[in-house]
Amino acid sequence: MKRYLQNIRKVVPYVPGEQPNFPDMIKLNTNENPYPPSPKIQAALQGIADSQRLYPDPTSHTLNAAIAQVYQVEESQVFTGVGSDDVLAMIFQTFFNDTLPIRFPDITYAFYPVWCRLFQIPYETKPLNDNFEIVPSDYFSENGGIVFPNPNAPTGIALPMNSIEEILQHNPDSLVVIDEAYIDFGGTSALPLLQKYENLLIVQTFSKSRSLAGSRIGFCLGAPKLIWALHDVKYSFNSYTINQASLAIGTASMLDTDYLEKTTRKIIATRERTKQQLASLGFTFPNSKSNFLFVTHTVWNAKRLYDALRENHIYVRWFNIPRIQNYLRITIGTDEQMDTLFRFLENYSET
Amino acid sequence: MKRYLQNIRKVVPYVPGEQPNFPDMIKLNTNENPYPPSPKIQAALQGIADSQRLYPDPTSHTLNAAIAQVYQVEESQVFTGVGSDDVLAMIFQTFFNDTLPIRFPDITYAFYPVWCRLFQIPYETKPLNDNFEIVPSDYFSENGGIVFPNPNAPTGIALPMNSIEEILQHNPDSLVVIDEAYIDFGGTSALPLLQKYENLLIVQTFSKSRSLAGSRIGFCLGAPKLIWALHDVKYSFNSYTINQASLAIGTASMLDTDYLEKTTRKIIATRERTKQQLASLGFTFPNSKSNFLFVTHTVWNAKRLYDALRENHIYVRWFNIPRIQNYLRITIGTDEQMDTLFRFLENYSET
Repeated sequence: MKRYLQNIRKVVPYVPGEQPNFPDMIKLNTNENPYPPSPKIQAALQGIADSQRLYPDPTSHTLNAAIAQVYQVEESQVFTGVGSDDVLAMIFQTFFNDTLPIRFPDITYAFYPVWCRLFQIPYETKPLNDNFEIVPSDYFSENGGIVFPNPNAPTGIALPMNSIEEILQHNPDSLVVIDEAYIDFGGTSALPLLQKYENLLIVQTFSKSRSLAGSRIGFCLGAPKLIWALHDVKYSFNSYTINQASLAIGTASMLDTDYLEKTTRKIIATRERTKQQLASLGFTFPNSKSNFLFVTHTVWNAKRLYDALRENHIYVRWFNIPRIQNYLRITIGTDEQMDTLFRFLENYSET
Repeated sequence: MKRYLQNIRKVVPYVPGEQPNFPDMIKLNTNENPYPPSPKIQAALQGIADSQRLYPDPTSHTLNAAIAQVYQVEESQVFTGVGSDDVLAMIFQTFFNDTLPIRFPDITYAFYPVWCRLFQIPYETKPLNDNFEIVPSDYFSENGGIVFPNPNAPTGIALPMNSIEEILQHNPDSLVVIDEAYIDFGGTSALPLLQKYENLLIVQTFSKSRSLAGSRIGFCLGAPKLIWALHDVKYSFNSYTINQASLAIGTASMLDTDYLEKTTRKIIATRERTKQQLASLGFTFPNSKSNFLFVTHTVWNAKRLYDALRENHIYVRWFNIPRIQNYLRITIGTDEQMDTLFRFLENYSET
């Protein structure tokens, strides 16, 4: 084999949820928002065609200022990237350079071990308990860094704020990264803890509650010295990542807090109704505070149900991962979409 | 110092050209295109607001298919990223994992050493000759990979195709990356060599000739097995990088080849006229085949002229780098913008 082929970096890539595209499909597989983004996006997109000829502002000033205003932090505490995946990848690359392993739950966002392998970061996983909850004391002993989503994915379970603070209290020497991708659907943000803990980074995204998965905008909030370090690495990788369209869209979306509240309230209401319906159909699930439910059925096999739903163009997510092979992750869609799911399940029988 | 602060990755970031924003300014400092992008962009942006709620196609199919169609290659030979910087960063990370140093010119795109430091890639630079030309034989001996722009930046000099082929002939074991960011302004693309050399990657961008610096779209063309390796690393970093807006904008732009030809012809005509004017004002410069000129003056000091231009809101680029400290890189703007520059220079005198 040629030398240049031998030198190719070996990776086991993340497998994103499939993106089928049938006109009649019900897409509940990638935790997208069923409602369109803020109507202010349309106006933001007007007149940006000609500005495409210029490089975007590498500091993403207008967007970062809008985020700082809404979350009542300084602009120097904000870092934005091409979706929260980009932000998390930059965090892993910037901060997780210890010889001690970083630590995260065994069942969590599937990208964490992928970044560890890509950047050659040692890691260890700590099992969720039998109720799929994070056990705070698992994170008390020495480590190279900590990362977990809150609410966790794909379980949807939120860790109470006092547990998060306990983890921070035991880790003054470690960076603690809380991935709040789903926080707007009912969890409690660790944002107030930023004032007490300089080793805390909070990651959020425009992809879920703000209906902007297609714009690729994520951000994190933390102490200015952590944010500077992220900017230095970002500028060493690609100086201009957030494009003109995303700067315009993201800024308009961030400032439309009324719309965010209106649509998240609708999704929360649909989620609670879905819990009742699925319970009556024989499903059990943790108490999700996110825009998805993580369900298992008393009788039906998850993989067979997944396949049957798929054949009927209802897409949900099944993970071929130990401990959760008999679970499905179902994104909360519109009431109408969920009704179609319920009708299917009412008539479903394993053959 | 806390352990987590000690572990922060140390980098010397790339410093992008400044992005001033005065209404009357003449911005000739970052090689942007003075003309707006294809008028088809406006139509492409219509109606994309609601699609923002969905993740973009991670395979960038419509965009990659348009690129494949225009360059008459297979879609499996196309990889797209968030600007050519993202594509190049992925290439460095994916392929430059040898213990032998990679090789590039001493005077070239300033990002190459930055990526080497970020990814801990050993590298060595080979000096351009006294005419600022790449010397092909410098790249014949064993190495961990080769990368250079063609035309080179900031010189604007194009390497003839037979020299590129010579380098490829001497490097069957190395990956050879040709960064053709400025190729549409008069250089000859190495594209036909893809049929003969499986170790060749050609990088291009939408930022210059297609007036889409603000959309952040770059791509590379090469053998499918190299493209697969890039996709694997990309999917391990951030699965969804090209957002919905860029997919729509990029596809429309790529297919509008008439507009590309029309605007690049205009820029080439302005460049040739600028060469005459600047020569008559006492400047000398290599024979640029790009959308910028790399000029030095027989009498005037480059840094002082740069400062004087800047005070008058005419922005060009000066590099504080040995060998080229008495040079300025001037982007080709509209004829009107260049006339303003000429008038300033006609009245300029060092004090």
